[in-house]
Amino acid sequence: MIAAPKYLALTGGVGGAKLALGLAQILPPAQLAFLVNTGDDFSHLGLHVSPDLDTLMYALSGESNPDTGWGRREESWRFIETLRALGGESWFNLGDRDLAVHVLRTERLRAGATLSEVTRELNAALGTQHPIWPMSDSPVPTIVQTPDGPLAFQHYFVRDRCAPPVTGFEFRGVAEASPPPAVLEWLGDPALAGIFICPSNPFVSVDPILAVPGLRAALRRCQAPVIAVSPIVAGLAIKGPTAKMMAELAVPSTAVAVAEHYRDLLDGYVIDEADAALLDPLKAAGFAAIAAPTVMLTLADKVRLAELVCEFARQRHAAAN
Amino acid sequence: MIAAPKYLALTGGVGGAKLALGLAQILPPAQLAFLVNTGDDFSHLGLHVSPDLDTLMYALSGESNPDTGWGRREESWRFIETLRALGGESWFNLGDRDLAVHVLRTERLRAGATLSEVTRELNAALGTQHPIWPMSDSPVPTIVQTPDGPLAFQHYFVRDRCAPPVTGFEFRGVAEASPPPAVLEWLGDPALAGIFICPSNPFVSVDPILAVPGLRAALRRCQAPVIAVSPIVAGLAIKGPTAKMMAELAVPSTAVAVAEHYRDLLDGYVIDEADAALLDPLKAAGFAAIAAPTVMLTLADKVRLAELVCEFARQRHAAAN
Repeated sequence: MIAAPKYLALTGGVGGAKLALGLAQILPPAQLAFLVNTGDDFSHLGLHVSPDLDTLMYALSGESNPDTGWGRREESWRFIETLRALGGESWFNLGDRDLAVHVLRTERLRAGATLSEVTRELNAALGTQHPIWPMSDSPVPTIVQTPDGPLAFQHYFVRDRCAPPVTGFEFRGVAEASPPPAVLEWLGDPALAGIFICPSNPFVSVDPILAVPGLRAALRRCQAPVIAVSPIVAGLAIKGPTAKMMAELAVPSTAVAVAEHYRDLLDGYVIDEADAALLDPLKAAGFAAIAAPTVMLTLADKVRLAELVCEFARQRHAAAN
Repeated sequence: MIAAPKYLALTGGVGGAKLALGLAQILPPAQLAFLVNTGDDFSHLGLHVSPDLDTLMYALSGESNPDTGWGRREESWRFIETLRALGGESWFNLGDRDLAVHVLRTERLRAGATLSEVTRELNAALGTQHPIWPMSDSPVPTIVQTPDGPLAFQHYFVRDRCAPPVTGFEFRGVAEASPPPAVLEWLGDPALAGIFICPSNPFVSVDPILAVPGLRAALRRCQAPVIAVSPIVAGLAIKGPTAKMMAELAVPSTAVAVAEHYRDLLDGYVIDEADAALLDPLKAAGFAAIAAPTVMLTLADKVRLAELVCEFARQRHAAAN
């Protein structure tokens, strides 16, 4: 009996969660797991906030807010409005329903649960069955380096709206971090058939995951192909500051530069059809690349891209064996 | 120049806050301060909740919820509904707007502020100017003793709806507590003209305050008359479990028994006009008592009772000098 193929998807925030949702539509929980960036996690108003874990949880459970593009659907803002009126810190918008997740997570962590455990509990409560692992149970806060000094990630991202130019990043505490044992088991499974790097920000969504000791090596060692989807389309980021960061870091803001960024890992690379002209340069640089519609507006778009990356993984796997 | 008379009111929850609001209507912040029970305070979902401090703050700032009789007006319940759906502890109802106060208080306490400081900040933010002092900056949680063992106060009061019979109370940590220095100064002020014990539960609202080392002695030593308003009317408590507790503690649930409870302190005692028949027994027992309408339904009722207790204090002061 041939075991059903298994896949692992690395994902960050809203962009990555789109492909993640597409994958979850076509692969059952026994065949698909997620490894999620927690570099954005921070303690705010005494609460442990895990933006990327929540973005994925809300996406998979149908709880995403279609109006804002982030946070929870049918949201209200009585808490944060009242906090603002009381003079509290209100630059990070916390919805009344979203807040329940942060309060519960914080309480469980304080009671001694690990972030992995709490993540499983919360997802189970929302009916999400796919394994979702934080990249590490210990905190690895991303620090954004700027000419005016270091900034905690959410201060850069939300409070300062990505305005400060970036000069580099620090994943503080990463040397002491370790990946969840379950992900190493999953990566060692002979049924593993593909690893997907979702179209998330390479610097602040994917790099923090890859920086956790043992993970990058495990991905390189692994027999299954690693396939990335470019978050850059026609030189622009679909969402977030990726292109702006690349310019500031003196990297061309192109899909090719993202492939170079992942060079030691990639077995396949998916760029947008708008960038089809880059296929030749990518091939010349040694990448196995395909062009496809990667801009996911509808659920059908997400499912179509998910099917495409699975098929691409099968081809790359076959080509290697 | 004769200094304007100063008053101090000891108060607990909803019942006490009614007279407190009446007093605040007729006395400016320079002449009226409040000393508030914090025995009900508890840590819930990682948040520091101070029910009696908040009840008074909401009453004085016009933020009380007229529909529920507790909590904040124009309240919504999205947070707690969501928490319940996630399987979180939801027996203690936290409104979305109320929650902002708990989150802010908890954050400030964690940052090193004292409960007195946070109380001042929160009240200032809501426009309340009268000094409001927690009975102690250190925690003194009330433990309710029952035949089935000890219960934390809010577990007894809210979760178990006062159903367990009580056999006694413990004010845990009270020996190490100390009253806020400001209240001792206020009590030593030659302009002090009256101390009011609001119609709060004697066992779990007023006794915790009186148990803080130094406070009971300061009240007994003080030159101004101590006037209590009975929380028992016609053998019943207007609000809360006072009468039920008295029965369980084998104390007659009468206004007379409450006076006996405060015997070492009282210079004057106000009972409800419905209990006028108790004036003679009270007099015979050595209490200076008057009967008046103490059931406060409207703001006018509250102001009228406030005026009455101030006038009574003046009379008792004059009689003693």
